Amino acid sequence: MYLTQSLHRAVQLHPDRVASRFGHRTQTFREMAQRVARLAGALQRLGLQPGDRVGMLALNSDRYLEYLMAVPWAGGVLNPCNVRWSVAENRYALEDSGTRILLVDEGFKEAAAALMTDGALLREVVYVGEGDVPSGMHGYEALLAAAEPVPDQLRRGDELAGIFYTGGTTGFPKGVMLSHNNLVSSGLQARAEGLATPGGSYLHVAPMFHLADIGLAQAHWIEGNTHVVLPAFHPEQVLDCIERDRVTHVLLVPTMIQMLVDHPAASAGTRDLGSLQQVVYGASPISEAVLRRAFAVLPGVRFAQAYGMTELSPVATVLSSFHHSEEGQKLGKLRSAGRASYCCEVRVVDESDHEVPRGTVGEVVVRGPVVMQGYWKQPRQTEAAIRDGWMHTGDGGYMDADGFVFIVDRMKDMIISGGENVFSIEVENALAKHPAVAACAVIGVPSEQWGEAVHAVVVLKAGQAASAEALQAHAKGLIAGYKCPRSVEFRESLPLSGAGKVLKARLREPFWQGRGRQVA
Amino acid sequence: MYLTQSLHRAVQLHPDRVASRFGHRTQTFREMAQRVARLAGALQRLGLQPGDRVGMLALNSDRYLEYLMAVPWAGGVLNPCNVRWSVAENRYALEDSGTRILLVDEGFKEAAAALMTDGALLREVVYVGEGDVPSGMHGYEALLAAAEPVPDQLRRGDELAGIFYTGGTTGFPKGVMLSHNNLVSSGLQARAEGLATPGGSYLHVAPMFHLADIGLAQAHWIEGNTHVVLPAFHPEQVLDCIERDRVTHVLLVPTMIQMLVDHPAASAGTRDLGSLQQVVYGASPISEAVLRRAFAVLPGVRFAQAYGMTELSPVATVLSSFHHSEEGQKLGKLRSAGRASYCCEVRVVDESDHEVPRGTVGEVVVRGPVVMQGYWKQPRQTEAAIRDGWMHTGDGGYMDADGFVFIVDRMKDMIISGGENVFSIEVENALAKHPAVAACAVIGVPSEQWGEAVHAVVVLKAGQAASAEALQAHAKGLIAGYKCPRSVEFRESLPLSGAGKVLKARLREPFWQGRGRQVA
Repeated sequence: MYLTQSLHRAVQLHPDRVASRFGHRTQTFREMAQRVARLAGALQRLGLQPGDRVGMLALNSDRYLEYLMAVPWAGGVLNPCNVRWSVAENRYALEDSGTRILLVDEGFKEAAAALMTDGALLREVVYVGEGDVPSGMHGYEALLAAAEPVPDQLRRGDELAGIFYTGGTTGFPKGVMLSHNNLVSSGLQARAEGLATPGGSYLHVAPMFHLADIGLAQAHWIEGNTHVVLPAFHPEQVLDCIERDRVTHVLLVPTMIQMLVDHPAASAGTRDLGSLQQVVYGASPISEAVLRRAFAVLPGVRFAQAYGMTELSPVATVLSSFHHSEEGQKLGKLRSAGRASYCCEVRVVDESDHEVPRGTVGEVVVRGPVVMQGYWKQPRQTEAAIRDGWMHTGDGGYMDADGFVFIVDRMKDMIISGGENVFSIEVENALAKHPAVAACAVIGVPSEQWGEAVHAVVVLKAGQAASAEALQAHAKGLIAGYKCPRSVEFRESLPLSGAGKVLKARLREPFWQGRGRQVA
Repeated sequence: MYLTQSLHRAVQLHPDRVASRFGHRTQTFREMAQRVARLAGALQRLGLQPGDRVGMLALNSDRYLEYLMAVPWAGGVLNPCNVRWSVAENRYALEDSGTRILLVDEGFKEAAAALMTDGALLREVVYVGEGDVPSGMHGYEALLAAAEPVPDQLRRGDELAGIFYTGGTTGFPKGVMLSHNNLVSSGLQARAEGLATPGGSYLHVAPMFHLADIGLAQAHWIEGNTHVVLPAFHPEQVLDCIERDRVTHVLLVPTMIQMLVDHPAASAGTRDLGSLQQVVYGASPISEAVLRRAFAVLPGVRFAQAYGMTELSPVATVLSSFHHSEEGQKLGKLRSAGRASYCCEVRVVDESDHEVPRGTVGEVVVRGPVVMQGYWKQPRQTEAAIRDGWMHTGDGGYMDADGFVFIVDRMKDMIISGGENVFSIEVENALAKHPAVAACAVIGVPSEQWGEAVHAVVVLKAGQAASAEALQAHAKGLIAGYKCPRSVEFRESLPLSGAGKVLKARLREPFWQGRGRQVA
């Protein structure tokens, strides 16, 4: 299997279909393949050898799509950079992966300049942004115009497709190595799940460097669908774009869903969102309250959840649209992450890797062709993560009798208070049902009496008010007393990773400095 | 990817769902996995080493399903034997592949005894049939009862899954080597095409040794569906079985469809066939007349066509149910073999492997993860068949502007008469529209005047009559004069391969003996 096959197939089947829409720019599949072949030629002229890594540090654009296809076409390996990371973090990822060629846009030209210091491995920077090309960089369009199209090197199978740095929520970044087989089997299972359907237009608004978007988009590449691209997430722009470009499918992380459905323009009903068929969400837990608001604001839209992680290319389980529907909700699976997708086996195991009885909390582990090849240059961390073929997710959860997986928490986010396990997600779900709460995160903080005490960090909705006591009383009405927050703190926003995950390590850090608990 | 994953996943998701129904025997997925683990243990006790081939020479049964899973589970390689072949042909395949263990049923116990001659590689024969175990053979159930279940060896990826002998229509058999990635990517694309849907019951009635059934069944394995098995094709038994076991999906080769829809019990409407959702057909061309009779007899059933060959695991293109529907037929694609499936790129090329313009006849070639690893121990034939990654099908066809592939003939079945190309399928389609014609085959025979002359072999429907002259006149009303048969011959039946393909080589042979044309 090879990433570029979907592009070749689309050119054979419907060369004149629109391949990408980005602002005022559109191109057909025939045009995209020609540009990809030229970009591949340009990368080879810049010295790319088979297996060399090529980075991209940029917001979403149609050129990001070209990069994702041209690098394997040229025989290279992808290394998409996290746009939320500091220069130091991205320097680490680029040096660690040995990346010599980097594409950047206007928002990151200073960062790129800072990365091209003496002694750095980085040699060639290609400017994909608008306006003047910064000195020392290659202009994207000039480079393409000067290059010859080259034949596809057909990098494929178990050959490395990309190194995807992850670990924003846990400190030290690790390079997740995914092969062509990893990514295409992930795309095929997503297509088989119905997460892409024929004749669709898929909106890239989640960051394109992240596997959530890269993985789900594979299903749309394989289907030969149109790619609509927005540079970044702004609720109003998303609504405009859905209406203007007749978007049918979109991937949103939960924070995006919350911001979208709470935006006045969404509930006002002034936009024609009738083209939208499906919203896939994932990458972090969603509260049921936000989900129900989304159902109300987007009636007739099918919702589906995908659960996984970069190391799983990235999907392990899917909660189908049916289980989100009024009829399906009667089955009581809405709070689950769904069932093992087609290329996955999923189990819940104890510390000795034995499967635990259904309903018992343990660690979720996954086996199948979507499991990464390992962490780049980290054999020990790879061995710790993949044992006997099973990827250990670090997520705590249980499986019900029907095979549905319920994630209760990251193993390390579980709070042990007075000897009782408290799952932060359960507390967050309770708090999120309060009408004034926009978002919240629950962590364990040191307690003389309980070992750990439950602490809530809350973001209120604009113009709404609620006291700590009111929220505690609200929680007591929904969950057991020992699970309720002992303390509540209000903030303007929560610290988020590039994928929209709450950085709980950062919230825990000030409480635990100088103490024994590993915060990350 | 690995063949056994679907079984592991089914046991996790729905252990108590019925995995197989065969006559009065049913078993759940939990039971099947336990028996498969025992059979794998038994095969290891019989001396199976990793990569060793295990044959099966038997009609369809639930034990065939167990064989298909237990061999990879034990670390072995499948070698399903063609039940239509002579002892000599199967001896060749078993010796060529170095098969030491063979499973046989009651219909083939004499054949197996004949295959266990002195000097043969074959060492162990397992009797899967009913009744007494023939001397010198192991009884299947006794073997399982005595064996310990063993862990799955997880044979996978590019490792060999099976050697599938083919070439019944072309003489010398070749062993097609398919890997786990070949077969599972084929199953995933079939699942993505909608050729299996959740909660279904798939009827194995096409021979289970053949890739048409093995390949399509992969989609049902992946979905976790129930497998209903009939030993062989008898129209009335198929109708009974659909009604009794609430079959939802079935694969039928065109000759089976013809026999089914022309059977009095089908059109009488006395059977409740309401469970049937989809008929997939393929493996040989179908006449439009037969297809239209099928639509009439099975209203509401979705038809889909899959085109390919063993070397393509086996599907390259799919003509969707939509294009068979009343609305879809308006698009005029019903006579096509459909479009490249998700794991395939398809092109039509000339003798120099250059793509020809749309609408021009050339050879159909296919690239992708479904392309076989090669012919077992035949590097030269492999090189001739797979050039630059493209499998050369030997089929002549053209592609229209929308990417639909129209197969006009096997390259070697084309008739050159008076300098004009005549595609035998076109002539067969015309003849099949005559109300008295049940089946027909058109070949080229030697002609002093024309080089080759068009000759038709016709099977009439029971109780119907038509003269050669009447059929020639009928054809003249539909196709150009030079395409019409110069001679017509009537027979009781056509010689068929195990896959239901007409053995045209056998029809041609008497005409061409001692002459230059290669008949096969």
